[in-house]
Amino acid sequence: MPLIAILAGDGIGPEVTAQARRVLDALGLDFSYQEALVGGVAYHQLGHPLPPATLELAKRSDAILFGAVGDPSCDGLERSLRPEQAILGLRKELGLFANLRPATLFKGLEDASALRPEVASAIDLVIVRETNGDVYFGDKGIRTTAAGRREGYDIMSYDEDEVTRIARVGFETARTRQRRLCSIDKANVLETSQLWRDVVIALSADYPDVELTHMYVDNAAMQLVRNPGQFDVIVTGNLFGDILSDQASMCAGSIGMLPSATLNGSGQGLYEPIHGSAPDIAGQGKANPCAAILSAAMMLRHSLGMPEAADRIEAAVAAAILGGARTPDLGGTLSTAAMGDAVLAQI
Amino acid sequence: MPLIAILAGDGIGPEVTAQARRVLDALGLDFSYQEALVGGVAYHQLGHPLPPATLELAKRSDAILFGAVGDPSCDGLERSLRPEQAILGLRKELGLFANLRPATLFKGLEDASALRPEVASAIDLVIVRETNGDVYFGDKGIRTTAAGRREGYDIMSYDEDEVTRIARVGFETARTRQRRLCSIDKANVLETSQLWRDVVIALSADYPDVELTHMYVDNAAMQLVRNPGQFDVIVTGNLFGDILSDQASMCAGSIGMLPSATLNGSGQGLYEPIHGSAPDIAGQGKANPCAAILSAAMMLRHSLGMPEAADRIEAAVAAAILGGARTPDLGGTLSTAAMGDAVLAQI
Ligand SMILES: CC(C)[C@H](C(=O)O)[C@@H](O)C(=O)O
Ligand SMILES: CC(C)[C@H](C(=O)O)[C@@H](O)C(=O)O
Repeated sequence: MPLIAILAGDGIGPEVTAQARRVLDALGLDFSYQEALVGGVAYHQLGHPLPPATLELAKRSDAILFGAVGDPSCDGLERSLRPEQAILGLRKELGLFANLRPATLFKGLEDASALRPEVASAIDLVIVRETNGDVYFGDKGIRTTAAGRREGYDIMSYDEDEVTRIARVGFETARTRQRRLCSIDKANVLETSQLWRDVVIALSADYPDVELTHMYVDNAAMQLVRNPGQFDVIVTGNLFGDILSDQASMCAGSIGMLPSATLNGSGQGLYEPIHGSAPDIAGQGKANPCAAILSAAMMLRHSLGMPEAADRIEAAVAAAILGGARTPDLGGTLSTAAMGDAVLAQI
Repeated sequence: MPLIAILAGDGIGPEVTAQARRVLDALGLDFSYQEALVGGVAYHQLGHPLPPATLELAKRSDAILFGAVGDPSCDGLERSLRPEQAILGLRKELGLFANLRPATLFKGLEDASALRPEVASAIDLVIVRETNGDVYFGDKGIRTTAAGRREGYDIMSYDEDEVTRIARVGFETARTRQRRLCSIDKANVLETSQLWRDVVIALSADYPDVELTHMYVDNAAMQLVRNPGQFDVIVTGNLFGDILSDQASMCAGSIGMLPSATLNGSGQGLYEPIHGSAPDIAGQGKANPCAAILSAAMMLRHSLGMPEAADRIEAAVAAAILGGARTPDLGGTLSTAAMGDAVLAQI
């Protein structure tokens, strides 16, 4: 029986994860669930945002259903103890290197985006972001310059194996869609990007059926505003992916609707809504659970080999939205649980 | 008599720069102008995108009026010979460390942005981007890993003096506007950003009249879509500034309307439209000269101590646009020269 680790985390994490769990239960799936603390709540109770027992559970699970981390009361802590480090730690310790971030506008939510409806409704893309390397995990620190000044430094790097494995995920993802892959880099300035581009081009020989293009990251940030409908699958590094995936989500409207998956090479994955812990509305039943519910759907598809069940959940969310179900972030008044009900009614 | 170096460059660069020159002439300013080759055209005629004579002219000029560089026929060249290297070379050789990128929506162009008119029309911000350091200029190359694989690397770094001098430009710019400065970094992951943030906070003691906030770069990319009107002045590093300033420009609508300035500590500056060389429309009289004309206005203000003349040019462009003058990028039919005429008619 597959083991699902439930790491609900901080703020609205537990509320939205509970609704995802209800939807999974409604499908009658035979999973075993185990919960563990993560983030600020784990720091406060156990002294670390990613306690050993949580990491151990995550490692032996088949998939991790993750809520959110982030707790203002931890702002003063040294970086290694802050809630967000739990995400970085899980990615690294479990080798979760491929972050998949779909961005689409749900029918009925054309007015939720700051983009014009005709621009926003054309958005249907997936960003494949590398999450085990780049300037995130390189050697870093504070050193003293020859002039005696303090200097912060971080080494950005990718080697050919790292680029190949994430680019492969990009090409494979494109094959399940419109077979168009755009690789984003800054090869006119960065050697890391030049190697990235060379390796992606070399790998494209294995995927003659996928159309490969390249774009500089500054231009990509413009194109995601001007005409996001032009993209099918984007593949990029950890830092550029962090920025562009959040930008793309906002272009698609409410970040309360968007899930994510972060996979390793063994089918294991961490599934989390892209929104944060939203401490300002935590515990009030105001949070939109759709992103968490859709993250559960991604889990069924990518880690548990149940694409039909994933389709059912996604169709139920789409139907609930089309039927007018709206939490406050979407301009409505439904509570978190009532939105869960609306989705369940469509299952 | 002030010396203006005219580096018109590639593609539409010469066409739009010619209109800026006409507007300067109409003001009856006593400048001496000297032209030199830069970019792809310089490579083709002199073997280097930034030939020694061009660099020498730039160094002894009071200001540089720059068109655009970029030439598809140079795509196959090694990076150090590509047109864009001229910009990086000028920034470094002349110590041009402070790139100012205003983004505003001109009255009458509410429909030019992909953002909803009510969101786009609230945009009125300046991005202050550092352009002499960061991962752009750190040690970089291709090395071999212990496993024998090729690895690209680039060192990101900032020391406290570099951060202080750009942050000071940010605070000073805020003082000329709404006195709100938002510093953008990725301090939850990068040591370079942590030092950046610490130094900005320390410097803020000198500017008690300016409200300082901090934002992570991924959140900034979201906020620039969701509600760009919230920003007054943004200060950030070279790489984040590259991405966010292009994103902000596109949020404000036509990139044919936006100028930029890049300053050093001695009042010298390079002034260029933010758009590129647009080889597809070069030589056809279709390019919008407004960004080049507005760059000339920035030159008068920031390098030549003529704020009233700058105001006159800016008011003339605004009036021409409000009066309905439109080049093809704005949905109209005016030629480059006719748009120049429309601006001149308002001087
Ligand atoms: C919390 C932070 C370290 C993290 C990142 O930058 O990767 C977050 O922004 C994300 O994208 O998951
Ligand atoms: C051409 C390129 C090197 C340059 C940069 O990245 O700085 C450009 O994008 C810019 O922003 O002026």
